[in-house]
Amino acid sequence: MAFTAAARCAALPRLAALRRPAIAPALSTLRRRTMATSSIRMASQAAPFYEGEPEAPVMKTEIPGPVSKKEIADLDKVFDTRALSLLTDYTKSIGNYISDRDGNVMLDVFAQIASIAVGYNNPALIKAAQSPEVISALVNRPALGPFPSHNWGEILRTGILKVAPKGLDQVFTGMAGSDANETAYKAAFMWRAAHDRGGHHVEFSEEELASVMSNQSPGSSNLSILSFKTSFHGRLFGTLSTTRSKAIHKLDIPAFDWPQATFPLLKYPLEDHVEENRAAEQASLDEVEHLIRNYHNSPAAVIVEPIQSEGGDNHASPDFFRRLRAVTRKHNVLLIVDEVQTGVGATGKFWAHEHWGLDDPPDMVTFSKKAQAAGYYFKDPELRPNKPYRQFNTWMGDPARAVLFRAIIDEITRLDLVANTARVGDYLFAKLEALAAKYPGQFDNLRGKGQGTFIAFDNPHRDEFLKRVRAEGVNIGGSGTSAVRLRPMLVFRERHADILVDALDKVARSWK
Amino acid sequence: MAFTAAARCAALPRLAALRRPAIAPALSTLRRRTMATSSIRMASQAAPFYEGEPEAPVMKTEIPGPVSKKEIADLDKVFDTRALSLLTDYTKSIGNYISDRDGNVMLDVFAQIASIAVGYNNPALIKAAQSPEVISALVNRPALGPFPSHNWGEILRTGILKVAPKGLDQVFTGMAGSDANETAYKAAFMWRAAHDRGGHHVEFSEEELASVMSNQSPGSSNLSILSFKTSFHGRLFGTLSTTRSKAIHKLDIPAFDWPQATFPLLKYPLEDHVEENRAAEQASLDEVEHLIRNYHNSPAAVIVEPIQSEGGDNHASPDFFRRLRAVTRKHNVLLIVDEVQTGVGATGKFWAHEHWGLDDPPDMVTFSKKAQAAGYYFKDPELRPNKPYRQFNTWMGDPARAVLFRAIIDEITRLDLVANTARVGDYLFAKLEALAAKYPGQFDNLRGKGQGTFIAFDNPHRDEFLKRVRAEGVNIGGSGTSAVRLRPMLVFRERHADILVDALDKVARSWK
Repeated sequence: MAFTAAARCAALPRLAALRRPAIAPALSTLRRRTMATSSIRMASQAAPFYEGEPEAPVMKTEIPGPVSKKEIADLDKVFDTRALSLLTDYTKSIGNYISDRDGNVMLDVFAQIASIAVGYNNPALIKAAQSPEVISALVNRPALGPFPSHNWGEILRTGILKVAPKGLDQVFTGMAGSDANETAYKAAFMWRAAHDRGGHHVEFSEEELASVMSNQSPGSSNLSILSFKTSFHGRLFGTLSTTRSKAIHKLDIPAFDWPQATFPLLKYPLEDHVEENRAAEQASLDEVEHLIRNYHNSPAAVIVEPIQSEGGDNHASPDFFRRLRAVTRKHNVLLIVDEVQTGVGATGKFWAHEHWGLDDPPDMVTFSKKAQAAGYYFKDPELRPNKPYRQFNTWMGDPARAVLFRAIIDEITRLDLVANTARVGDYLFAKLEALAAKYPGQFDNLRGKGQGTFIAFDNPHRDEFLKRVRAEGVNIGGSGTSAVRLRPMLVFRERHADILVDALDKVARSWK
Repeated sequence: MAFTAAARCAALPRLAALRRPAIAPALSTLRRRTMATSSIRMASQAAPFYEGEPEAPVMKTEIPGPVSKKEIADLDKVFDTRALSLLTDYTKSIGNYISDRDGNVMLDVFAQIASIAVGYNNPALIKAAQSPEVISALVNRPALGPFPSHNWGEILRTGILKVAPKGLDQVFTGMAGSDANETAYKAAFMWRAAHDRGGHHVEFSEEELASVMSNQSPGSSNLSILSFKTSFHGRLFGTLSTTRSKAIHKLDIPAFDWPQATFPLLKYPLEDHVEENRAAEQASLDEVEHLIRNYHNSPAAVIVEPIQSEGGDNHASPDFFRRLRAVTRKHNVLLIVDEVQTGVGATGKFWAHEHWGLDDPPDMVTFSKKAQAAGYYFKDPELRPNKPYRQFNTWMGDPARAVLFRAIIDEITRLDLVANTARVGDYLFAKLEALAAKYPGQFDNLRGKGQGTFIAFDNPHRDEFLKRVRAEGVNIGGSGTSAVRLRPMLVFRERHADILVDALDKVARSWK
């Protein structure tokens, strides 16, 4: 695979052009062709979902190239660019490919930190963004609590709630992942306090009403949220108190004295470490139960990621999660599943926790990123607080993004993208297993088998490894201290997997 | 003024129609006419900025009417409607008027909790929402830290930063007001910890790196944010710890042990209570200084609203704020001015703190609501943390809303809306003074003179009073326990003030 091959950049539709009325027939044709393609299953597996996508990355300069360097220096005067990876030209990015201003076009398996579901400049999303509902939601942004639009229920039902996890049928919407988790925590605290008080109908005491104004108990709660070591749940004050992935996220910020349990860090390959891993999971569950029983600030809820993502792509078995559900149920502690990164198809199921086969669903499931919208799903009517305005804020979500999520859901359904991701994930995993065998020590602890494209491995020189893969035209990210994490979009196909594997092979082969 | 007068509802442009290319010439004409109007100052004061706006409210049914009742019951199955005030038909809302599905059209002086700046279905905003920049920002939402778009600097410079408060030239963007304040708090904590550690260059100790992972000091900070009683700064865990307006916001939620100072609750009319008010302000400043010196969790920053909004529209004098700046400067404590509700023109200045005449600007100014975008302005380069990824999250703001804020700024400039608001505010305040004289006990503590349309008064039967004003066709809100707060948009004119005053007069006159 020659990455310097002439790609079809000139053919990339530009966003500005896409919006001209004249382009409408072209978009329709594109859509018809894609639909026709996807109906021919065998052929479709090789074909991209996007016409106009380049056939391969095009690397014209180092990253950043001369144009980008100049523009980054200028941007830095008003925006901190120390975390900048690629000054991106989104008008020239399409499908699985991300572009910059120096003419570089990269296959993107990082996808805005796992937040792009159906490809850059997806025509169906452009159409949704131009819809009257989105435009109205942007220019007349409602305070959803007091002034919801007359079609808000319909938007929820045909979008966010259409993909509600099994057993949950309500949603509270927010702005982003941190916000989704924090409002879920608030719901958990209010629910648990009502329970401890004797029920939703019991009024607050004078002492509670007075003490809460100076942030003291009993009005302010001494309950806690239990999270796992190496977890990531966000970076606002409540969520950061449950985030345990990296010190740099937490240093110098006040935190609540809340408990953490060890996450069962599994050994790979799983089949060679069955007993050890089972013991690690048992020890973790024992610790959870011990903390629920004994921690001085008693947990109202446990929050867990189906796969710890920022913390290094740490997996546990379905059995672990089923038993975690049982332990929380036993102690009347809520279970919040944080699907901010794992949700919306990337693991080969719409929600990653579907892999667990739970009989008793989680109490809340939080989402954001690929959904573009954010919030928490729940079922128990008592998770609506006993009085209005307790779970309330000005905007309470973003209807424009709720409509976009609906368009994403429709696109996932139309192109059968969850099944695509499951299949391509298996294809990619097998190729990575071959690479791991070929280059010992470079693809350690390969994990995510059967989890769609939500795949990772460890590399002892991770940061340098990522840099070299990027130089080969693949935009790729890390997680934790040594993991290379793959987070392609749901429109990632076998042909893209081949390009990724070729780049990894080339870097591994030439490693010095 | 007869509210039953035939209004021009039939003439309301519908959003769907506005989007058709055929409407473009009509929009241009509208814009030309409005510009021509605004250039003729005397005539412009009577004319609305919107063609198509009704001449008066139209109340056809009680609120909610039969159609709304049915739709609200349906919505309640998936969305908590206990805080619902008006199930809104935004396609039929225009300028200062908000509509429902029963044909009711109300003058809106609440404006989505003070969040609509330039009118419903403002044509300039619709145009911005349809722009390639907004569509790209919606469908290709960037992780701004690593993958900003190549034009992000330009979007900031021509929008958010163009209206940066005097003395501040940097911005960190977020999603909403709570988020803006929480990230400002984080910046304050990191800044102060670096200072206490001996400078930005001093590395973290092993003890800090270890302790922070279990939420303990010294890695987790024991510093605090000092806020004022009756303040409102948001409802996430950090901001809720600084919010002191109502118990219902805070009950059952864990809170940080942070200090609060009494806000100087002024007596009205101000000219009759000069000495008492001066003493109240002095006592408040003394308490701030005492808490800075003695509170066991030492404040890294003080946060204050220019006018306490949710807490009941509480004002203080410019002198109070100048001295608060001096006290915080003296003790090396940062001053954060929360302009989430006061910002963007409503007080007759673009930022309310411009009324103070500060020589030494605040360290940070936070914004959201009318800006649609959110974040905090700052200047000191040391408020950028000493390492990347410390102030970081996936989206770090919303470029779509940044472009919309730019369009709002352009519209404010084009129509000179800050000056309009200052002038109409004076006009309205004089009329309210007359009402207060005419109906003793119904318009108590009238306040906000010289503060644009950011006006409030107390009424002993506030909730019932609001209900009756709504029945007269004016959508109006309260704050605190007894305040009627006026939060019209910036396109509110003398003719709208007349309608509001007539409604208030009618309700007061018939009060039993």
